[in-house]
Amino acid sequence: MALIVQKYGGSSVADATGIKRVAQRVVASQQAGHAVVVVVSAMGDTTDELLDLAAQVSEHPPARELDMLMTAGERISMALLAMAISGQGAVAQSFTGSQAGMITDSIHGKARIIDVDPHRVRTALDKGHIAIVAGFQGMSRSTNEITTMGRGGSDTTAVALAAALDADVCEIYTDVDGVYTADPRVVPSARKIDKISSEEMLELAASGAKILHLRSVEYARRFGLPIHVRSSFSDQEGTWVLPSEPARTIKEGVALEQPIISGVAHDRSEGKVTVVGVPDIPGKAADIFGIIASAHSNIDMIVQNISTHGSGRTDISFTLPMVEGADALQALKDAQASVGFEDLIYDEEIGKLSLIGAGMRSHPGVSYKFFKALSDAGVNIDLISTSEIRISVVTRADLLDTAVRAVHQAFDLDGTEEATVYAGTGR
Amino acid sequence: MALIVQKYGGSSVADATGIKRVAQRVVASQQAGHAVVVVVSAMGDTTDELLDLAAQVSEHPPARELDMLMTAGERISMALLAMAISGQGAVAQSFTGSQAGMITDSIHGKARIIDVDPHRVRTALDKGHIAIVAGFQGMSRSTNEITTMGRGGSDTTAVALAAALDADVCEIYTDVDGVYTADPRVVPSARKIDKISSEEMLELAASGAKILHLRSVEYARRFGLPIHVRSSFSDQEGTWVLPSEPARTIKEGVALEQPIISGVAHDRSEGKVTVVGVPDIPGKAADIFGIIASAHSNIDMIVQNISTHGSGRTDISFTLPMVEGADALQALKDAQASVGFEDLIYDEEIGKLSLIGAGMRSHPGVSYKFFKALSDAGVNIDLISTSEIRISVVTRADLLDTAVRAVHQAFDLDGTEEATVYAGTGR
Repeated sequence: MALIVQKYGGSSVADATGIKRVAQRVVASQQAGHAVVVVVSAMGDTTDELLDLAAQVSEHPPARELDMLMTAGERISMALLAMAISGQGAVAQSFTGSQAGMITDSIHGKARIIDVDPHRVRTALDKGHIAIVAGFQGMSRSTNEITTMGRGGSDTTAVALAAALDADVCEIYTDVDGVYTADPRVVPSARKIDKISSEEMLELAASGAKILHLRSVEYARRFGLPIHVRSSFSDQEGTWVLPSEPARTIKEGVALEQPIISGVAHDRSEGKVTVVGVPDIPGKAADIFGIIASAHSNIDMIVQNISTHGSGRTDISFTLPMVEGADALQALKDAQASVGFEDLIYDEEIGKLSLIGAGMRSHPGVSYKFFKALSDAGVNIDLISTSEIRISVVTRADLLDTAVRAVHQAFDLDGTEEATVYAGTGR
Repeated sequence: MALIVQKYGGSSVADATGIKRVAQRVVASQQAGHAVVVVVSAMGDTTDELLDLAAQVSEHPPARELDMLMTAGERISMALLAMAISGQGAVAQSFTGSQAGMITDSIHGKARIIDVDPHRVRTALDKGHIAIVAGFQGMSRSTNEITTMGRGGSDTTAVALAAALDADVCEIYTDVDGVYTADPRVVPSARKIDKISSEEMLELAASGAKILHLRSVEYARRFGLPIHVRSSFSDQEGTWVLPSEPARTIKEGVALEQPIISGVAHDRSEGKVTVVGVPDIPGKAADIFGIIASAHSNIDMIVQNISTHGSGRTDISFTLPMVEGADALQALKDAQASVGFEDLIYDEEIGKLSLIGAGMRSHPGVSYKFFKALSDAGVNIDLISTSEIRISVVTRADLLDTAVRAVHQAFDLDGTEEATVYAGTGR
């Protein structure tokens, strides 16, 4: 008997039919002899409908009340799923984030988990019940307030709960049958990946592959938890994300015989900020990133240009999620005088492309092949950043698809079967 | 400066426009110098929509999960109202039932309040904030489960919170402008009552006047709390329900000069159970009502007929809410052998009519006039029950309107102005 945590996204529970189908799958897992915990997102469009109502009553709804509003969505879907399961003869109990012990910090709208105490979930499992847990939400221990974790939060709930319960696997159900070597909408010949290390998945997620949220992969890697990404519409095996030994070896810099390229990811959700004319003296970069951190923005790529101003000044560019752009710019503007920079430039017409794979550092041929493919395709490069298992570049947004196809083909990633349609997973 | 608790029903917050209108009224109360706590029901049809979804996924949804589902409704309306208020420049914080300290027993779907600990509400008021509280819901202290209080629960939340906060008044906003001498849909000439004692209001509510829920009136009376029933669509004074001195005198049996008739109430929501052939020995009535109590049914009128069976058997009839009829009948059937009765008869084609007013006991003329009016109108009487300030009769359902009009006219209750339309208040 295994302990399985299953996560179903909003599209899987969009209506009564979907909820009953998920209930069948959950009950079947229990009948196969497993203890089952289910994490569920809000039904289909609920989140958008609630956000629309909020916009109708207030231009700037307070974050605390937005969280209070949003969390109603999972409350509805989880109660309905528990009912549907009990309608099929099993016993289910639903739990809100706070009932399930999802303790977060107090940043409304993008809270982070700081502790998980699922004793009520465990009691339900001990009784042979199926436990349903609201994804995406928690409670702040310091303020006793209801919080939400931002996009991808339900994946994070599932993985964190699986880690706290010492589950055998966390199954993430979605509307695609696994992780692909590239977005099949851009590269129709993309192949499904059967197994991938947590580290590579982390780079894929960070590089914009929307199938699993970055935070959930980080969490799984930290706790050595296997994730199984699969479709809720079939019984096929999907993609296993494994905290594997080879991946760890790569992290330590031990070369493998051949570089293994996992896939190509891309991301259109970021904007680029350039801070122009920063005094080239120690501490200024720290000042700038301190300001961004206090605006709760998540910086991705950072490039500091060489000092070109003669007068000891330099430019610092970085990318960050577009939704956080306005707040970050405002915070920087407020600090212009104290930091002493000259100007701010903000650009949303960019795209990011990343190649992920093990053994890149020891194979200079990889970088060469990568940049040659982009150059042959006529794609100009704006920013570059690399890690042991990833190369990322920022290009013009309108050239991104061309770039993805060129790199995917250059590394012989094309498969033989046509892929099923790929879609984002929402919460 | 007064502390005011305001309750708005679902029809007042049915859409964004309604929510903004309520927000204006709330902010105006605060600007008039008052501390304001708002209790809010779910938006318009939310409850019915959620119940419909529940019916689609399960034939017999578990009560715990139904409560979990239903409480999402107030969560949505209260968060939106808090946003709308902050959009108008005031500061509001919303609280779920459990956050507001509404502690109940653990009977899902019809929980009763056993304690109120509104320290978070008080803290919000101390900061000059407006507190918004979800009506209709609470948390069981023994099971830590979310509970709901059944129909009229939001009124009860408002009154209980007002009592715990030692508020100056509890304002119940609805879509009529007060309490009438009879249902204006049945008696168009019914008059609005300006002031009524808690005791008389209690009898009116218990007799089927749907404007205030019985439990909330009981609660207000126990804590000496004034209720002001008024329309959310106008600034007119409504009906004050006062825990007044005269009312107490009446309870103690002191006669007034003239009987004061408050109004005529009617109720079509009850069914009549007759337990036929009960052994006429001590303890059998207790057995029967013990069985009904354990099925969590609320019995209203009880009549034990004289023993007509020769063999020492009697019939016991009582009325109870129709929605509880099936459970109560099943519980009685299960106990037929042990109690030893012969048969059960259940009748839903009944109506209840009540005349409420102070000083009835000391004025035998009241009963005479009451029964004569019914007799003149050709209305046959099935059951009778009386208290110091009320006479109730059960008639055939199809004669109820005729009976109400006849009694209303006999006691000169007809007003001169046409009444506004009367409607139930839902939760």
